[in-house]
Amino acid sequence: MLIVAALGGNALLRRGEPMTADNQRANIKRAASVLAALIGEGHSIVITHGNGPQVGLLALQAAAAHPDGGAFPLDVLGAESAGMIGYVIEQELGNLLKERLFATLLTQVRVDPRDPAFARPTKPIGPVYEKATALRLAAERGWPIAPDGDKWRRVVPSPRPLEILEASVISFLVERGVIVICTGGGGVPVMAMDDGSLCGVEAVIDKDLASSLLARQLKADMLLLLTDVDAVYADYGTATARALRRLATTEISGRDFAAGSMGPKVAAAIEFVDATGKPAAIGQLDDAVQIVKGERGTWFEGSASACPLLLAKC
Amino acid sequence: MLIVAALGGNALLRRGEPMTADNQRANIKRAASVLAALIGEGHSIVITHGNGPQVGLLALQAAAAHPDGGAFPLDVLGAESAGMIGYVIEQELGNLLKERLFATLLTQVRVDPRDPAFARPTKPIGPVYEKATALRLAAERGWPIAPDGDKWRRVVPSPRPLEILEASVISFLVERGVIVICTGGGGVPVMAMDDGSLCGVEAVIDKDLASSLLARQLKADMLLLLTDVDAVYADYGTATARALRRLATTEISGRDFAAGSMGPKVAAAIEFVDATGKPAAIGQLDDAVQIVKGERGTWFEGSASACPLLLAKC
Repeated sequence: MLIVAALGGNALLRRGEPMTADNQRANIKRAASVLAALIGEGHSIVITHGNGPQVGLLALQAAAAHPDGGAFPLDVLGAESAGMIGYVIEQELGNLLKERLFATLLTQVRVDPRDPAFARPTKPIGPVYEKATALRLAAERGWPIAPDGDKWRRVVPSPRPLEILEASVISFLVERGVIVICTGGGGVPVMAMDDGSLCGVEAVIDKDLASSLLARQLKADMLLLLTDVDAVYADYGTATARALRRLATTEISGRDFAAGSMGPKVAAAIEFVDATGKPAAIGQLDDAVQIVKGERGTWFEGSASACPLLLAKC
Repeated sequence: MLIVAALGGNALLRRGEPMTADNQRANIKRAASVLAALIGEGHSIVITHGNGPQVGLLALQAAAAHPDGGAFPLDVLGAESAGMIGYVIEQELGNLLKERLFATLLTQVRVDPRDPAFARPTKPIGPVYEKATALRLAAERGWPIAPDGDKWRRVVPSPRPLEILEASVISFLVERGVIVICTGGGGVPVMAMDDGSLCGVEAVIDKDLASSLLARQLKADMLLLLTDVDAVYADYGTATARALRRLATTEISGRDFAAGSMGPKVAAAIEFVDATGKPAAIGQLDDAVQIVKGERGTWFEGSASACPLLLAKC
């Protein structure tokens, strides 16, 4: 089956780890071994990935080199980060699957210029800071900031993805058996002007929502959101926390879960299931093969009949 | 016919212009209008491009943000620059050709670990400096430097490209009518280890030699190298300078022209013509349509019979 597999930023760089080329490669190596196992099960996969730490670093690098402004806008930095991360995924996965063909594709994603997100930045990028440091940087650089767990981060607008512009190109490649790496960091946000021309936007797109949209456009059989948490939890972080193994999309919404981490993943899963009747799942990277078999992670289903694989196991 | 069109770094950023996002976009807009005209003539094109100023800037940004080292290696920076430039080319050309499909593809290029270039860095990257500044930076950062015209620049190894690893993927896309942007900055240099695994290399590949190789692998009908000089000149920069309109590859070699600027272009053109019997041409960006018609630029031919188009004009 065709699976769109989204690698979380935290699957590419463990929480708290410095953003170095070596750390990034070590984590991608680990992700590649999981993806190779999934492909070894006979599935076609299209790989998407986050870029939160990376695009934040590129923005900091550009700011350090251009203290007087003139740093590159976020759409261009997003395109940079997609090249940087996609390259290492393609190379490391290619080293495990030497007979396969790969394509790392720049992906533009159309957003609505009237999206309310532009008035309310919410998406964290870059490093985490202590509150005092974050407040100072916010004052110095004009950044909106917001809490992320017990730390603080810079936040930018995160408009809703409406269309993956390269979807038909990705489909051509999937048809030819090519393993495609795309929609890096949620893709590069662009908006259509009055004459239909596209223009980049200073924003980042949630990569889970973009992956869900991509999975719908590709008519994928499953959406798989991989992160560093083994399942979606009820009452996460409390004494009564419990992993949820199956969720009917008729009974929940992304708003039931924390914005910024699990919320967008749950919303992305629900959107895919509701639009296609096909399954979505959330779980940890190392469990990918078992998640697809219905043995680990949290599965989302519209109705019982939509998940024959899971039903067979229950 | 299928044309591999290589945009020189100087076609993307005019000599002496600061490397800003706005300057880059303005130049790419101009290049896009030329490429759109070429496509309007009925040709299929695969677009490659330089990245000298951009990869140099990214290296400087990374160095500014990590003064203690830890900057990303050149292969990763090359992948970044390909995303950054490819994105803008795809967007600007897409705005002129709204009905067409585009793919900006990360490209790995295999080099030989025993290539003598690794012992002798020659490829300029980054900004041009006055000699005194260049000498200081060389001492501070351990850079090899070399003269570039009357200025100085950092130089890095430039091994010979042996294989474009994504060539068959590019062919699939060309077959489907997709306009492909690839081999940015000459592609990301990689070498094969003893077990066949690939590993990135701290080097940059000459984009004209890589474009020539790509054109051979794609069985393209023509190699078109676009720069900011209208033709190849004999006695360039002297009172007896004269534009060369037709060159037989049996009579010249890249060594007859300055290394670092026209030399690699001439060598790339000769390699393509000698391997395929098909034409190559060098000229200025704005003349692209006329160059392909044989009316401008310098044409390279193996033997007269190899260039029916030109013969018809002569």
